[in-house]
Amino acid sequence: MLETDEKRHLMDDGTMPMKIEDGRILLIDQRKLPDAFEYFDATDLDAMCFAITDMVVRGAPSIGVAAALGMAAHLKKLASTGEIESSVLQNTKDKLDATRPTAVNLKWATKKVFEYAGDLLKRSVTGEKFGLQIFGFAENLLQDHLDRNRTLSEFGSALVPQGGRILTHCNAGSLAACGWGTALGVIRSAKLNGLAPSVFVDETRPRNQGSKLTMWELTQDNIPCTLISDSMSGFFMGKNEIDMVVTGADRIAANGDSANKIGTYGVAVLANYHKIPFYIAAPLSTIDPNIESGAQIPIEFRDTDELKTLEGKSITVSGAAALNPAFDVTPAALIKGIITEEGVLYPPFSTSIKEALERDKSTSRR
Amino acid sequence: MLETDEKRHLMDDGTMPMKIEDGRILLIDQRKLPDAFEYFDATDLDAMCFAITDMVVRGAPSIGVAAALGMAAHLKKLASTGEIESSVLQNTKDKLDATRPTAVNLKWATKKVFEYAGDLLKRSVTGEKFGLQIFGFAENLLQDHLDRNRTLSEFGSALVPQGGRILTHCNAGSLAACGWGTALGVIRSAKLNGLAPSVFVDETRPRNQGSKLTMWELTQDNIPCTLISDSMSGFFMGKNEIDMVVTGADRIAANGDSANKIGTYGVAVLANYHKIPFYIAAPLSTIDPNIESGAQIPIEFRDTDELKTLEGKSITVSGAAALNPAFDVTPAALIKGIITEEGVLYPPFSTSIKEALERDKSTSRR
Repeated sequence: MLETDEKRHLMDDGTMPMKIEDGRILLIDQRKLPDAFEYFDATDLDAMCFAITDMVVRGAPSIGVAAALGMAAHLKKLASTGEIESSVLQNTKDKLDATRPTAVNLKWATKKVFEYAGDLLKRSVTGEKFGLQIFGFAENLLQDHLDRNRTLSEFGSALVPQGGRILTHCNAGSLAACGWGTALGVIRSAKLNGLAPSVFVDETRPRNQGSKLTMWELTQDNIPCTLISDSMSGFFMGKNEIDMVVTGADRIAANGDSANKIGTYGVAVLANYHKIPFYIAAPLSTIDPNIESGAQIPIEFRDTDELKTLEGKSITVSGAAALNPAFDVTPAALIKGIITEEGVLYPPFSTSIKEALERDKSTSRR
Repeated sequence: MLETDEKRHLMDDGTMPMKIEDGRILLIDQRKLPDAFEYFDATDLDAMCFAITDMVVRGAPSIGVAAALGMAAHLKKLASTGEIESSVLQNTKDKLDATRPTAVNLKWATKKVFEYAGDLLKRSVTGEKFGLQIFGFAENLLQDHLDRNRTLSEFGSALVPQGGRILTHCNAGSLAACGWGTALGVIRSAKLNGLAPSVFVDETRPRNQGSKLTMWELTQDNIPCTLISDSMSGFFMGKNEIDMVVTGADRIAANGDSANKIGTYGVAVLANYHKIPFYIAAPLSTIDPNIESGAQIPIEFRDTDELKTLEGKSITVSGAAALNPAFDVTPAALIKGIITEEGVLYPPFSTSIKEALERDKSTSRR
């Protein structure tokens, strides 16, 4: 069983990727981990847009909550000095939505704030009162994510065998998922439940979220973890050293096709080949019911310098051509289950996803 | 059609990874490419052992030839000052064989020199004459590799479709294969034959031979190439942007199971899933007929600092656990054909490999 100290530490919700202090939005600068632990002030709208684009904050749920807070802070500031027109709502939303194209949580969260702000305006709530209410609404989204992650992680924990050796890709931890984590949340809850999981962490090129963020989170929580390169997962699967795979997702289509960090698809194909269960862990806000299949999910291509340089130094020939898609889509057929706060969804996902969204709507949470 | 200049350049045998000058063995320092083009003097036995272990020279065939030259240079030096006992032959061979465990070409080449030196001693050839003959024998191995690579590359070229988009992993080029290349040799020959191939080059973590060496070689030869991360090959296969995969090999078992740079297995599984032909290109010296299957191939685990640091800077938490297998084994079932200087071998490999080795033995080349 776990020592009380370990339990208490785990109960810390992992490490929240952001905090509110005196109305300012402070994001852990995830670009600097694990070397330095610093906060980045993203209260200003431009600063928040930069923080999302440049990956100061990353991970679909954390991006969503950060954007909601950024939008609310901006509207609050405007409301304190004058009247807010509905065009301002739209412009602010558009600006944030344009920062990164793949994750659906971003648009989900800004839409929530947009609708709530519209309601306030309709009810002629203005000035300081408008500011307090809109910012409070965004703050609730943060707490709501944490609750949902805790819940889905409990469902996921039930899938982890005693002493389970789990491979994860990228960082779907507390930093990415706004507290506790999704894929790492499942692992945290498994640890809390005495299942003694251990983790293979692939480095997740080109930005190395695995080596930098996931290794950092797991080490903080004293969960045994081993760093490998992305190219090694097949090797360890072939040696029967991996019992299950869990990753997060950035957008899930109505049929269960799931976009996640580039490389997830390859891991899923390998897991399938080795008959190792492959799970996605994600809150329902990651599901985009308007999109039928993964083919319609837009894939962000990022600056190729992420591949052509390491720590600022060129690692290939000058003028090299490169391609840098940031995400790929894992088809539903390769996914054993999607772990959500409404339980683990199983194929056929088009049915189980629809039902979960309906159950969620009928509760007061969303 | 190719411009005459391009043809001439391609006819340069790629860039030979080593040269002999005044009896000194000079290796291109592959650790420094593409930033700097420098030679490393590996004439001394200790220097050669270091050069192989530290990957100044790498790639199974190049390692083999370098070791043969290093052994010959050492024996030549000893012979010039006294008598050579057969225990010296064995000790020199053992020292070189211990540098890297996976590639079979290393042991194949040192055994050749060992046997030839033994013959010379039996025939009482000593002193300067012994030195000249043993070094000449090793030099011939170098020219022999180049000839074999040229031949196998012609066979491989016939498999490349017009405008074929080829994925390769690691560096099985001129640098690795002692002139012209194996996987890259096939691509060079395809270019020479007017097939206009283009290449996806994965970076090949953790040592980035793809970004550094393969991109450099292809750029030198004006062959269109695009750098991607190891985690992206599935993405581009899924988009139907890859027509075939060709890699080298470090050791091939009698049944066709092939050890190659870590990550090759994952690429082969992905190619299989997407029904894309996966080929190995390797000279017959890569085949270890004494080993029945890949399960018996020893896998080298290298220093985990290769994963934990980038350009000397830590990229993960301090004290992180990591694993760094340098090779994996692709089972024969995933290999469409093995491209050798005796033609393209097809399943069942246990038969086609045996026949190729017999054909080769009956010629004077080996």
